[in-house]
Amino acid sequence: MQVAPEMTLSFAAGISLLALVLAFFVIRWIMRQHTGTDRMREIAESIRVGAETYLGRQYKSISVIAAIFAAIFAVAIRDPGNPYLGVETAGGFILGALCSNLAGYVAMYVSVRSNVRTANAVLGSFDRAFKIAFRGGLVFGLAVVSMSLLGISALYALLGDPRLIVGFGFGASFAALFAQLGGGIYTKAADMSADMVGKIEARIPEDDPRNPAVIADLVGDNVGDIAGRGADLFESITGENVGAMILGLAPAVYALYGVNGVLFPLAARAFGLIATMLGAASVFTRKKEDPFRPLVRALAVTSVVAIAGFYVLSVVLLGNSLNLFVAAVIGVIATIVIAFITDYYTSYRKRPVQEIAFSAEGGPAPGIATGLSVGMESTGLFIVVIACALFSAFIAGGGWSAVLGTSIEAVQFGIYGTAIATMGMLSVTPMILTLDGFGPIADNSGGIVEMSGNSGEAMAVSESMDAVGNTTKALTKGYGVASAALSAFLLFSAFLQVAGLRGIDLAKPSVFLGGLFGGMLIFVFSAFAIKAVGKTAAEMIAEIRRQFKEIPGILEGNARPDYSRCVDISTKAALKNMIVPGLLVVIAPIVVGLVLGAESVGALLMVGTIAGILMALYMNNAGAAMDNAKKYVEAGNLGGKGTALHAATVIGDTLGDPLKDTAGPSLHVVVKLLNTITLALAPLFIMYALIPV
Amino acid sequence: MQVAPEMTLSFAAGISLLALVLAFFVIRWIMRQHTGTDRMREIAESIRVGAETYLGRQYKSISVIAAIFAAIFAVAIRDPGNPYLGVETAGGFILGALCSNLAGYVAMYVSVRSNVRTANAVLGSFDRAFKIAFRGGLVFGLAVVSMSLLGISALYALLGDPRLIVGFGFGASFAALFAQLGGGIYTKAADMSADMVGKIEARIPEDDPRNPAVIADLVGDNVGDIAGRGADLFESITGENVGAMILGLAPAVYALYGVNGVLFPLAARAFGLIATMLGAASVFTRKKEDPFRPLVRALAVTSVVAIAGFYVLSVVLLGNSLNLFVAAVIGVIATIVIAFITDYYTSYRKRPVQEIAFSAEGGPAPGIATGLSVGMESTGLFIVVIACALFSAFIAGGGWSAVLGTSIEAVQFGIYGTAIATMGMLSVTPMILTLDGFGPIADNSGGIVEMSGNSGEAMAVSESMDAVGNTTKALTKGYGVASAALSAFLLFSAFLQVAGLRGIDLAKPSVFLGGLFGGMLIFVFSAFAIKAVGKTAAEMIAEIRRQFKEIPGILEGNARPDYSRCVDISTKAALKNMIVPGLLVVIAPIVVGLVLGAESVGALLMVGTIAGILMALYMNNAGAAMDNAKKYVEAGNLGGKGTALHAATVIGDTLGDPLKDTAGPSLHVVVKLLNTITLALAPLFIMYALIPV
Repeated sequence: MQVAPEMTLSFAAGISLLALVLAFFVIRWIMRQHTGTDRMREIAESIRVGAETYLGRQYKSISVIAAIFAAIFAVAIRDPGNPYLGVETAGGFILGALCSNLAGYVAMYVSVRSNVRTANAVLGSFDRAFKIAFRGGLVFGLAVVSMSLLGISALYALLGDPRLIVGFGFGASFAALFAQLGGGIYTKAADMSADMVGKIEARIPEDDPRNPAVIADLVGDNVGDIAGRGADLFESITGENVGAMILGLAPAVYALYGVNGVLFPLAARAFGLIATMLGAASVFTRKKEDPFRPLVRALAVTSVVAIAGFYVLSVVLLGNSLNLFVAAVIGVIATIVIAFITDYYTSYRKRPVQEIAFSAEGGPAPGIATGLSVGMESTGLFIVVIACALFSAFIAGGGWSAVLGTSIEAVQFGIYGTAIATMGMLSVTPMILTLDGFGPIADNSGGIVEMSGNSGEAMAVSESMDAVGNTTKALTKGYGVASAALSAFLLFSAFLQVAGLRGIDLAKPSVFLGGLFGGMLIFVFSAFAIKAVGKTAAEMIAEIRRQFKEIPGILEGNARPDYSRCVDISTKAALKNMIVPGLLVVIAPIVVGLVLGAESVGALLMVGTIAGILMALYMNNAGAAMDNAKKYVEAGNLGGKGTALHAATVIGDTLGDPLKDTAGPSLHVVVKLLNTITLALAPLFIMYALIPV
Repeated sequence: MQVAPEMTLSFAAGISLLALVLAFFVIRWIMRQHTGTDRMREIAESIRVGAETYLGRQYKSISVIAAIFAAIFAVAIRDPGNPYLGVETAGGFILGALCSNLAGYVAMYVSVRSNVRTANAVLGSFDRAFKIAFRGGLVFGLAVVSMSLLGISALYALLGDPRLIVGFGFGASFAALFAQLGGGIYTKAADMSADMVGKIEARIPEDDPRNPAVIADLVGDNVGDIAGRGADLFESITGENVGAMILGLAPAVYALYGVNGVLFPLAARAFGLIATMLGAASVFTRKKEDPFRPLVRALAVTSVVAIAGFYVLSVVLLGNSLNLFVAAVIGVIATIVIAFITDYYTSYRKRPVQEIAFSAEGGPAPGIATGLSVGMESTGLFIVVIACALFSAFIAGGGWSAVLGTSIEAVQFGIYGTAIATMGMLSVTPMILTLDGFGPIADNSGGIVEMSGNSGEAMAVSESMDAVGNTTKALTKGYGVASAALSAFLLFSAFLQVAGLRGIDLAKPSVFLGGLFGGMLIFVFSAFAIKAVGKTAAEMIAEIRRQFKEIPGILEGNARPDYSRCVDISTKAALKNMIVPGLLVVIAPIVVGLVLGAESVGALLMVGTIAGILMALYMNNAGAAMDNAKKYVEAGNLGGKGTALHAATVIGDTLGDPLKDTAGPSLHVVVKLLNTITLALAPLFIMYALIPV
């Protein structure tokens, strides 16, 4: 069957527009919901202003840095065959950064409006509150994915070659790094300092209106978990789509499938949007039940529809290539298995988390030691699943002769197979993003409910919402690492193709050094990210203590704390402290590439990716497991709240915060940034490197 | 100048024997020192019996496992050109494991006799106590290095080919893994549980005779820090010597230097022994001064003599190859720079450690977060130094054309240059080992002094000894990682040569998976090692609590606790809990090699090495920094002992224990075991792998 490339592009663009229209109607529905009492509106207004101010300033900082880099790229990147390559790369870079910022902004726009409406609904019925939070997440998911798809489709229609779009992906990951890092520093610094001075020193509850940092904490959910994650996933989808399209250009693949092989990823992504819309529709059908069930059902429906879509695509676009359909199914299955593994290591109904709680009987140190070891151990099964998925998709694509490496064509088909598996895994991204958005909205609404003086029934409902949100957050983080891992292989295959390298031979000293630097970069970046949270928190702590001391009547609830000063401090400190770690991971690979050459930077990329995935898993899962060990005790186990054991688990939870919400998620972006940076700057390394290929 | 190989071998063997004779006389001198009061003798006797019992059982366990593996190797390893290869490998393996055990035993033999004599001397003069502890360490250093050198020289004289000695190196690292892991679990489980129940629950001082675990804790120093480390460094020296000799067989190197290039490492090692003996002599010359100064001077003298030795050797053996002399000097300089870096990140006079203490003002969680980030950050400068050393040695060996890869000969000379740099770094090993042995002997003597009811002046002296020991321990650990890092490159160059691989192309899917598994292995092993400490400590804690409850008058000092039951429990538990993590790192590379092939196992090795070095640095330095942050507070800073801040740093210190003394040091061995395992089993992977090279 013949399909014109224009048809495929129109299909992708059309579905994106459809998803945006749906998102628009969902926003209208959300805006029609009631915003509650004056007090609730007032709190929500402070959160909105805080979040918008922060994002505004953050985008300004990012724009300045991005502009400097773009100017350098425009001048430095040259290609004998294409005199405009530098300008094209710089232009794409700027556009990608802008789109990433826009995606984060849209996500935040919806979340700061859904939170108060969810809070008001909590006072009435769980069902309505659940719907508002879910639909807020849905807007997030649909908007981010369709904006990426639309952008790539338009650029491809314009430029006609995916290799010219890599600048766009690089710009997106560049902006995402600072967004996720700055947001992550903001949210955890506010959270830790509010807890440390409020809960521990002044002994007032979490989200208590007497705490000057409470608004900053709620702002943090929106700028870190929502805007940061939105930018993160925007760049993931973008980078991976562009990478997969480039692999469709591999000679053997292109000879068989033509331009259809290049456009397949776009069509697959469009089917993912359709699947998510249908999956979202399935949420609204049933009556009251365990709140986690409808979310699982939505994900299941999305997965099944996405698989069906892949079948159709492999028949229509790829001339009945059922082996590639199998590769896509492998990707979907890997997603599901990884969700189970993440749940096993981080759920408080499972042994690992309970063991953390048991060992905390010996004090905070053994509890934390066990927590860290659970995080390290969780890498085991995860890597085995990723390895099986990659390897079986490679075989599905190219057969055993691809494994033996006897035929170059077979290897190219094998690598295309891993790209298709990645597309399979990513097909459910919009739904995952929906779940990802659900958590912070529910969290925020709980804060608003508590701050506006509600208790009893409403608090219970909002806590059960929060519990669901915690589970979805852990699962989506596992997904984030898995997609980074799978797509990394795809992206560095694209890099090899673009850079014209035959391989990455780790046994060469210069290449081995590249690998060493790649691994080291991950550790140093993590160190800086964790430290940045500490530094920002220290400034916040001083301010909270000052207010408790200097504002009379504040702790009795007679005087209003100065929320805006705390918001202001964390805004400035987060922006200041994100610069060094952010620049480090941008500049280091460029320096290595210029000094040691393209093959060496390839090793930096690969070993950095492996180390990044492992460290991200370690920190994400250790943090989540220690968080839930505390929840396990708070649920009344082992003596419950108020015991020394409980205090020990609280310490573990607090330690886990910067690991799981700042360093870990930022590493997902780092891994992908390393990929897009090398992909976009390959011509630079080939041209200027001290050690040529 | 012509030098017959027999002369070089005789020189190496002769110096080894000389060092052993010197060690024998030093032991006689130590044995002539007074053993103090009956009470001290009695305590020392309990430690000796405990340590000997533990090592006896540990060696039995290791022997059983080793015998099983040896039998498999004897049957499975086949080589068309050499029908006896399997038996030779198995025989070397058994011999290596035996020698490693013997090295550990000798080290322990001296330390359990030096500790009580040092303790008695502490009551008299610092000077004498210092001498005994130093000389105890010296025996340790000389014995371990000369046994390795003697063994290799004998095997080379017998077999005539370093490739046939790899089984010996593999056996040594196999035994060392279990020795370091089991010893590390023992010592930290005893330490943590004694602290947790004694210091925190019962509020009695450290090393108090009323604590039932106190003897087990003192035994731990000897079986973990002494016997474990002795086995660790025995295998390092052995593996690296064999690897460097194999690189001397590279066609271009052999064509120029002949057998002298192969024997150069042995001669260099012999000069290292001479340098250490002269360095040790320099310790005894001056009168009372800052106790750390004479140790630094000893190391300086050793380094200078070693450099002079390299000059002589490069003239005599390598026909005036001053470029290789430069490579050796690079290795020595790297050692010194790394000592400074380690000191910067872990000394309490420097900013990083003080920042941990400052941030602990916010509680244990921010303190630990800062501590972990210091550990991660410390990898940065370290890797830069290692990279510079490797790269400049490579250039020294092969020139710029080696870097460009334009001449295969130049590359072989370049790699030989890195081998010589490694030899330079390792030339000071016997002195480093001496310093390494000093720490636990001083620590043990302090325990004996305290347990035998001394206080005041004697305690102050023994605390200042302990402080010196802590510094040397941190420095020698940094050295351990550095030598593992530098020699890893040497060892996998040897692996490539033996396996006949042209490179390790990470871009092949099966090879990339090998790399993924390598990184993952490090994280899972670390998790298991930390957990093993927790499990063992839990059994100990239950026993200590039982004794406090069931033995009347124990806390008043009227009844003697049952020390031996605690010793017995930690013996059994440590041996039980070392099995799973130990077998994991032995079996995983074999499985990967058999399924995915030799190139893939090469990637496992390289990425595993990078990840292993980074994780070891992270855990060692985070642990040491948190330990010293506590000491900084205890020295009277920020309010001193008894404050909430102090309690927070104590928690950080306890958490750091399993990181810095179990998981971290075991990773040094894991990295080298991965190297020797692949080197020794390369024929297996080539013969049986599903995916051939």
